[in-house]
Amino acid sequence: MSDNTIISTRIRLARNVDGLPFPHKLNELGARQITDGVERALSGVSRFTRYDMNGISRLDGTILQEKHLISPDLLTDSRFGSVLIGADETASVMVNEEDHIREQVILPGLSLDAAYERIQKIDDAIASNMKLAFSPRYGYLTSCVTNLGTGMRASVMMFLPGLTLKKLIDACITDVGRLNMTVRGVYGEGSEAEGYLYQISNQRTLGVTEREILDSVGGAINHIVDAENRARGLLLRNETELKDKIYRAYGLATNAYKLSTAEAMYVLAMIRLGAYYGYINVNNVDALTDLTTRCRPANMQKLSGKNLSIEERDVLRAKFLSANIKSLAQKSE
Amino acid sequence: MSDNTIISTRIRLARNVDGLPFPHKLNELGARQITDGVERALSGVSRFTRYDMNGISRLDGTILQEKHLISPDLLTDSRFGSVLIGADETASVMVNEEDHIREQVILPGLSLDAAYERIQKIDDAIASNMKLAFSPRYGYLTSCVTNLGTGMRASVMMFLPGLTLKKLIDACITDVGRLNMTVRGVYGEGSEAEGYLYQISNQRTLGVTEREILDSVGGAINHIVDAENRARGLLLRNETELKDKIYRAYGLATNAYKLSTAEAMYVLAMIRLGAYYGYINVNNVDALTDLTTRCRPANMQKLSGKNLSIEERDVLRAKFLSANIKSLAQKSE
Repeated sequence: MSDNTIISTRIRLARNVDGLPFPHKLNELGARQITDGVERALSGVSRFTRYDMNGISRLDGTILQEKHLISPDLLTDSRFGSVLIGADETASVMVNEEDHIREQVILPGLSLDAAYERIQKIDDAIASNMKLAFSPRYGYLTSCVTNLGTGMRASVMMFLPGLTLKKLIDACITDVGRLNMTVRGVYGEGSEAEGYLYQISNQRTLGVTEREILDSVGGAINHIVDAENRARGLLLRNETELKDKIYRAYGLATNAYKLSTAEAMYVLAMIRLGAYYGYINVNNVDALTDLTTRCRPANMQKLSGKNLSIEERDVLRAKFLSANIKSLAQKSE
Repeated sequence: MSDNTIISTRIRLARNVDGLPFPHKLNELGARQITDGVERALSGVSRFTRYDMNGISRLDGTILQEKHLISPDLLTDSRFGSVLIGADETASVMVNEEDHIREQVILPGLSLDAAYERIQKIDDAIASNMKLAFSPRYGYLTSCVTNLGTGMRASVMMFLPGLTLKKLIDACITDVGRLNMTVRGVYGEGSEAEGYLYQISNQRTLGVTEREILDSVGGAINHIVDAENRARGLLLRNETELKDKIYRAYGLATNAYKLSTAEAMYVLAMIRLGAYYGYINVNNVDALTDLTTRCRPANMQKLSGKNLSIEERDVLRAKFLSANIKSLAQKSE
């Protein structure tokens, strides 16, 4: 069942170049020097495409952000920010965001070791081309102390509708907090995470090894998967209600004339949950996951190829989702 | 367009037998005398089936009520109440409800004259078999003064989603009140009539002729049809919203795992409205109208053939409506 609960694994490493001020104090020359250095280093790993934030359209930048390849800050706050993106978009390196260098690898499912292996290759290439700021006492030096030491954040994106709907998510967050993990909603600011998607990541980066971080995140994830599965069992106590909720969401997804992003996230989540219970047959779960990105505002805008009002975008989203969901997922009765 | 706005026409005549106390003071012998007399009289008109409220199950009684063939009062408050129902259920005669005799004819669409013609045959048959209480000064004597005179209530059931959704229904009710007409929701007690169904009927029965009543009701109906059509035009000003509302209702009707009666009334209303705008193709409007009765609680109970909890009934209703609507109505895109 864990493939229904775990969406993806992400590891990122924060690095800075020795002898240069942190990005918020960095001048254009220094910034370019770092970007060029990273580009050169990565050319030895595989094919990366570089996007400078100064030269990218707002729309294309937002699309990268919706794909989690860059942070919102790189797009709006960095003065000389760039990103280098690998061919299959699993690896990316942000330059001159909060730190000089932010390496990132995202892999589907629970893939902590595989992601770490991949990011090490990137990190090795960069470290052998540029002198990184490293203290024998503290480890990697970072712009913000919360990243000091390993500079590593290992995150797992989880789908937790059971814990959310049964109002057990807060207790779970507290539990996991004791293990030095942070849980936050991936989308949305409200009390309920949009699409029931949460990011679980290590809080500590200092005084622990990379291996210890990976193990503690892995342990926390196992704990949450168990809790989520128990919560999904509890939802079955009122199966009529549950089935109705899921079928109505399917009806909304395949019939609405317009759909907001939040509604799209909701119906996709309910269909994914329906697949877990066997109420909905989903023939391609990865494609379903992709839709959570493809239906976001900038992606919709790009799909249409022209400027759309919010209402027009909502109409396009409904059409787009309806067609995709009809071919991906069918009610099992 | 009026066939989308006007559901049915109903005429009823209140009559009492001379020399016998009104039903609330009537003993069993007197009551049976009237019932037998009416049954005999109607046997000369066509085949009527008699149901005594004392001998009918609560479920069957409620089904008659849901079909508007008897009043709730006949079922719960009358001591010796009966009803005689014609073969196609367009004509029915309640006995010993508030008055000794309540004749009723219901026809589809706007059929004031046709309904009056049919009820006259029934009334003539009864009048020639039984001596009715009639005063040369006042006309027919009735248990309640509001029915005195003609004893006639001519009602038209109308579908008024435009006026309701545009919040113009109250103004319309006031307008029509000046014409001595009463407007009330057919179903539901809340501020919005369930299914946007309203009954428009004459208030005055005394000091007017039957012809005058028919003409004044007909005039009021024309006025309301015009107002409703204008309101439906106003709804088109936000067509995206309108289309979305209708398509979502269709999605709910064809996907929900359970549906309450109120929700069923809502989706049927929206599909009917969708047919008006051409968003939904309905191949049998009368069958759609019938569903508003067939999905009501007692009808559902009867369909299942066994005792159902409310939840089981809601599940059955969703299944029943979904199957029927899929065959009756398709989205036009």
